[in-house]
Amino acid sequence: MKLFGGIEAGGTKFVCMIGTDPEHLSKEERFPTTTPRETIRKVTEFFLPYVKSGELAAAGIASFGPLDLHPDSPTYGYITTTPKEGWSQVNLYGEICRSLNVPVAIDTDVNAAAFGEQYWIPENRSLDPFLYVTVGTGIGVGAIINGSPLHGLLHAEAGHFALPHDWQRDPFPGVCPYHNDCLEGLASGLSMAKRWEQKPEHLPASHPAWDLESDYIALALVNLIYAYSPQRIILGGGVAQHPGLIQDVRCKVRQFMKGYLRSSMLMERIDEYILPPALGNRSGGLGAIAMAANLAA
Amino acid sequence: MKLFGGIEAGGTKFVCMIGTDPEHLSKEERFPTTTPRETIRKVTEFFLPYVKSGELAAAGIASFGPLDLHPDSPTYGYITTTPKEGWSQVNLYGEICRSLNVPVAIDTDVNAAAFGEQYWIPENRSLDPFLYVTVGTGIGVGAIINGSPLHGLLHAEAGHFALPHDWQRDPFPGVCPYHNDCLEGLASGLSMAKRWEQKPEHLPASHPAWDLESDYIALALVNLIYAYSPQRIILGGGVAQHPGLIQDVRCKVRQFMKGYLRSSMLMERIDEYILPPALGNRSGGLGAIAMAANLAA
Repeated sequence: MKLFGGIEAGGTKFVCMIGTDPEHLSKEERFPTTTPRETIRKVTEFFLPYVKSGELAAAGIASFGPLDLHPDSPTYGYITTTPKEGWSQVNLYGEICRSLNVPVAIDTDVNAAAFGEQYWIPENRSLDPFLYVTVGTGIGVGAIINGSPLHGLLHAEAGHFALPHDWQRDPFPGVCPYHNDCLEGLASGLSMAKRWEQKPEHLPASHPAWDLESDYIALALVNLIYAYSPQRIILGGGVAQHPGLIQDVRCKVRQFMKGYLRSSMLMERIDEYILPPALGNRSGGLGAIAMAANLAA
Repeated sequence: MKLFGGIEAGGTKFVCMIGTDPEHLSKEERFPTTTPRETIRKVTEFFLPYVKSGELAAAGIASFGPLDLHPDSPTYGYITTTPKEGWSQVNLYGEICRSLNVPVAIDTDVNAAAFGEQYWIPENRSLDPFLYVTVGTGIGVGAIINGSPLHGLLHAEAGHFALPHDWQRDPFPGVCPYHNDCLEGLASGLSMAKRWEQKPEHLPASHPAWDLESDYIALALVNLIYAYSPQRIILGGGVAQHPGLIQDVRCKVRQFMKGYLRSSMLMERIDEYILPPALGNRSGGLGAIAMAANLAA
């Protein structure tokens, strides 16, 4: 029996999974992200029985970043300049390769989530470009283009798009430590918590926060549609799952495009175009399993 | 002797070329874009001797858009909803296939330009993603990602990005008939001509127009870098060739990123990162020849 390991490496928690596919997981565990040494030790312990039994065929890592993903770089698979204390220049890929001793794939959490939503969901398979956008504590974008995840100079950082900011309507200066009022600075869960002095999940549906939030997300999606011309967008992350938000976003995307792109998908079937993740909040971990299965195939 | 044809189909002029590569062109001709019937007849006449002699092996079309580029669409290769009178729903690809009777490739003018800059310039070959941005009368973006031009729901339309617009500094409302003050609405040659009541080429180097223009272009490139993480950006088009502009743009790109992406390419070698087209103003036509050569290979 060949099993695949999935590691979702987040800034606040790690999730480990093992199995053959989303319906057949043998074990799943989450633990807080502490020091690299302790956290990677917990990952190793999780998989150890399956390494010993020879059942683990390959593993995938869906990691927070920034990551070095240049195949020929001496620091391939390192977490590079993260502000997360102790995690800068950590060789996450190398450490996990060494401790598991099976083929390992690594990508950003959002690229892995995009890969997972496409790999496990038959209706998503042939859609290209295919985007995964997460709006949670932060904002990130993963993309599969021409059959492969998007990498390049580094990797996509479309969460930091510069967007129109109407200071009269929204005098909040933004929370991005680099750009202040970029997309993430204005529309992340963190920005909502600071602007309204309440956690987003405590803001009632009638609060004006949600109208502003769906405006920013829709504006961001319009820019992403113009940039990538995606065939489908998966809108994940905790903030985006607020009841009614995705419906408002769809409506506003159409409104903000002003009929510029004459696609029946945008005009008539936008509810098939912008979708919540079919894998719920497990796209990252299940995407990592998909990367492992793909590597072993 | 096998020759390749290149057709640059623009809204104001068509350029036809035939040869084996940029250094060996047998003939080149440009004529105004009139009715589809007359314009396509001129294209046919240009290539006729080479069709008769059997020398024409394949042709490429670098066309204005929007284009239908879905391989399995019944209207593949049509110019679709262009405002250009008489050119809406014109089967450009089909008509040229029929009249030349050789394999034909078609793509957007900007994707073709990106393809040409990469195909003919050895130093660009392995760079991926690779972007071609044109700032002329309009603004367009072509991209080669994971080895192939970017297509999708339609094709990239990043010229229509929504950007921050500081109304105090620039009270001009923009010229985009769809979005008013999107990137193209604020920074195209057309917008400059309207805002300053002078053609951009007549605006002296000391005119404040150029400081504003390089701000908008740099802001747009920052968004493109966050979206695609390109390994190189070619900045073409008439407006972008204004002396000194590209230097200002490089400087401002670095400034607007505020050190967010720690890449030595951005930090220390940005003059190798944002470059004018090596093929000058012929990237489109020579890109079309490259597409033909690639098709016949």
